[in-house]
Amino acid sequence: MPVQWRRAGPDLLVGLDPDAGALGVQIQDQVRAAIRRGRLRADERLPSTRRFAAALGVSRGTVVAAYEQLLAEGYLQSAAGSGTRVAAGLEEPAARPAEPSVSAPPTVADFEYGIPDLSSVPLADWRRALIEATRRLRTAELGDGDPAGSMHLREVVSAYHRRVRAGCAVATETVIVAGFREGLSFALAALRRHGIADVAVEDPGPHEQDVLVRRAGLRPLPVAVDDGGIDVASLGRSGARAVLLTPAHQCPTGVVLSPARRRRLIAWASRVDGVILEDDYDAEFRYDRRPVGSLQGLAPGRVIALGSVSKTLAPAIRIGWVLAPKRFAAVIADEKRLCSRGAPGIDQEALALLIETGRYDRHLRRMRDVYRLRRDVLVAEAEHAFGRGSIQGSAAGCHVLLRLPEGVSERTVVADAAGRGVRVHGLERYRFPRGDADVAAARVPSLVLGFGNVDAERIRQGIRVLADAARRAAASDH
Amino acid sequence: MPVQWRRAGPDLLVGLDPDAGALGVQIQDQVRAAIRRGRLRADERLPSTRRFAAALGVSRGTVVAAYEQLLAEGYLQSAAGSGTRVAAGLEEPAARPAEPSVSAPPTVADFEYGIPDLSSVPLADWRRALIEATRRLRTAELGDGDPAGSMHLREVVSAYHRRVRAGCAVATETVIVAGFREGLSFALAALRRHGIADVAVEDPGPHEQDVLVRRAGLRPLPVAVDDGGIDVASLGRSGARAVLLTPAHQCPTGVVLSPARRRRLIAWASRVDGVILEDDYDAEFRYDRRPVGSLQGLAPGRVIALGSVSKTLAPAIRIGWVLAPKRFAAVIADEKRLCSRGAPGIDQEALALLIETGRYDRHLRRMRDVYRLRRDVLVAEAEHAFGRGSIQGSAAGCHVLLRLPEGVSERTVVADAAGRGVRVHGLERYRFPRGDADVAAARVPSLVLGFGNVDAERIRQGIRVLADAARRAAASDH
Repeated sequence: MPVQWRRAGPDLLVGLDPDAGALGVQIQDQVRAAIRRGRLRADERLPSTRRFAAALGVSRGTVVAAYEQLLAEGYLQSAAGSGTRVAAGLEEPAARPAEPSVSAPPTVADFEYGIPDLSSVPLADWRRALIEATRRLRTAELGDGDPAGSMHLREVVSAYHRRVRAGCAVATETVIVAGFREGLSFALAALRRHGIADVAVEDPGPHEQDVLVRRAGLRPLPVAVDDGGIDVASLGRSGARAVLLTPAHQCPTGVVLSPARRRRLIAWASRVDGVILEDDYDAEFRYDRRPVGSLQGLAPGRVIALGSVSKTLAPAIRIGWVLAPKRFAAVIADEKRLCSRGAPGIDQEALALLIETGRYDRHLRRMRDVYRLRRDVLVAEAEHAFGRGSIQGSAAGCHVLLRLPEGVSERTVVADAAGRGVRVHGLERYRFPRGDADVAAARVPSLVLGFGNVDAERIRQGIRVLADAARRAAASDH
Repeated sequence: MPVQWRRAGPDLLVGLDPDAGALGVQIQDQVRAAIRRGRLRADERLPSTRRFAAALGVSRGTVVAAYEQLLAEGYLQSAAGSGTRVAAGLEEPAARPAEPSVSAPPTVADFEYGIPDLSSVPLADWRRALIEATRRLRTAELGDGDPAGSMHLREVVSAYHRRVRAGCAVATETVIVAGFREGLSFALAALRRHGIADVAVEDPGPHEQDVLVRRAGLRPLPVAVDDGGIDVASLGRSGARAVLLTPAHQCPTGVVLSPARRRRLIAWASRVDGVILEDDYDAEFRYDRRPVGSLQGLAPGRVIALGSVSKTLAPAIRIGWVLAPKRFAAVIADEKRLCSRGAPGIDQEALALLIETGRYDRHLRRMRDVYRLRRDVLVAEAEHAFGRGSIQGSAAGCHVLLRLPEGVSERTVVADAAGRGVRVHGLERYRFPRGDADVAAARVPSLVLGFGNVDAERIRQGIRVLADAARRAAASDH
């Protein structure tokens, strides 16, 4: 049977479809839509339920129920003696905005920092682990659970960190979160609750970490990074009692914190009763030796170590961890309880199983070979195009620093490359914002090249585009 | 072959197991452990690599590599002429704390607020959806993606909200988050960035929401709730330009915001250029009529609606959404980008599929029947034990308010019940903290009974325990 259109009032045409479910609901939906679209205006009187029902050929009870629903929702109002009217003050819904039209050049290479090889994500293993997790979880484990995360995963992660990262964390001082940034937000909030006001950050350092520090109500203090990592003497002079750093493979310069600096850093922390936030973000991938152990293993009472699977498995699997001294772990778990509940319980169990069955390690071994090959290609191509010594920070991780010829503008090269389908950022993006153009101009221009998600052929093409761009920039500047 | 124990120095007994992997790694691990346990003390000199190698019967190169690793990690230090020594300033790792010993009575009934029936979680459906999601996601979708969430899920969720909650949200103004609390944190941060300083909250209202509001740097202002929901006249006098409320089924009183109040609320928001944060937390479960539509549908330019699957599927599946006017949606997505990346991409795709295939709706229909039965049992048992009219707020959702006999102390009943295995909270827990004991004493004592995860038999037993506890409390007070 086709839709029956009937006029229920001067401005209200209602179409009822006997095959589209309850008539009362159809009436409600159409009156609601008429109000939203302005066909029924504020204060306009609706027909009586008797007339409405007669016009549509439905029972009066159906119309009464529809009116009642719309009265309860606030679309209609009724007053003794004046019948049922459209409520006043309802706004127009926002129009659906047009889709933006994008006309970017085809991508040759995307050297964006921090993306792992997405074509190698071990989806079959993860699927198997999810299936097993949904079978193994007990009913009670489907609730909110411990704010610090599932004890199973906390045990597995802390044991993994002890085994692979030479840490000495225990499960009860491990908090599972939904990734590095969430963990950092909670750790910063915990510092604040412990009376810490300033947090030293590496300069250059991870993009936007000053924003995150400020958002937690803390003051970021930039401390210079050189070829040995963060300058611990400057850190001491900063007056901060907390520092956020990337010791295993500095972001973005790629340097590894030197042994002497590691010791001095721990000594600094003891002296000022301080805290070290260790962003242990791509420590698993070291190419020239066994990865340097986590600072957490050296000074468990002073270090809050943060890790995640975003760069080892995939950003689309959101699990991270915070290994913290007891006085911080409880506060971090409490922040998490208040603001989120962290990673899904099912995913937590799946990750615990993935690590326990050895599949996580196997994946990391495989990826180390994949990334080593990409690194080798990148270093060879870049040194061919830009000269020996132009690449820094290739001992570990999935990004390197490329020094451009002196006097060439980072911005010019970045913009030129973007126009030719190569996405890359200059080192300037990672520097602490100061608005000091003279200092910036005096620096060695450099590009940060993330290669985790760029295959060898795209690396070759991308470097060629960058070399051309640098040549053009040099020619135009001189 | 068994482990070979050899003395490498006065305090250093090293056991090498030829079947346990690389000897150099075994040496590293044992030296590290000896330093941590204090067997090797700060500044103690290690044997030369030649002597160490000879003592253990391994090649000198193996020992050199192990020393180098420990030097790089900061456990050892070396200086010209003084050999290799244990670094100073390393702390003892925290001892593993003893497990707390718990001796609680066996649980008779847990009336904790806000937990759905965990034995009904549609795990088989969720598993199927996860499997399908891991097969369907394209490689590029395994990255960080749009900070606002997967466009597929944003489309599905906004369409669901339009269809089931009578909303009028669009996908581009929908942000996917990892649950209600995360969404609320970001929404509050967005209010602050829009220059709003005060947020009115319901009193009584959801537990700890004042803490969450303060944590976002905003000031919570309590506004009284009565039998019609939040008192909009008081809200107007509060001076706040934003309000956080639970209109579909007030938490914890269970009242549904009256039609007149809904209209007045929208009028208030227009008048003060205000924002309504709508916690749409258990609106799907309405027993006496079709659920009242979301306020968002009435005033999309004024309402930020928050929802999640914690109470419809399970807390262990962490996905929520924020439907916000455009000026807020972008800021909320930016907060999310900074502080977390929200729900896992794979889970987002799984939820989109679960909703699209109709399995989500089917589960909700089934649960409505489960909860209706539990509600009926609870109301019948409670009215039998405490008298007619003792239950309020049973028209919707998974909790009700039980009024205790006048003069009986909530705290006494709650503590007595806890000792007999019944977990429940008094209404006092949900009131805005003021430290005003006189006002509290004058109020009708009430208990908030969540029944989502309590089966009919436990409800019966639990109500009996509460009735006994109330009787004892009345006897002891008089």
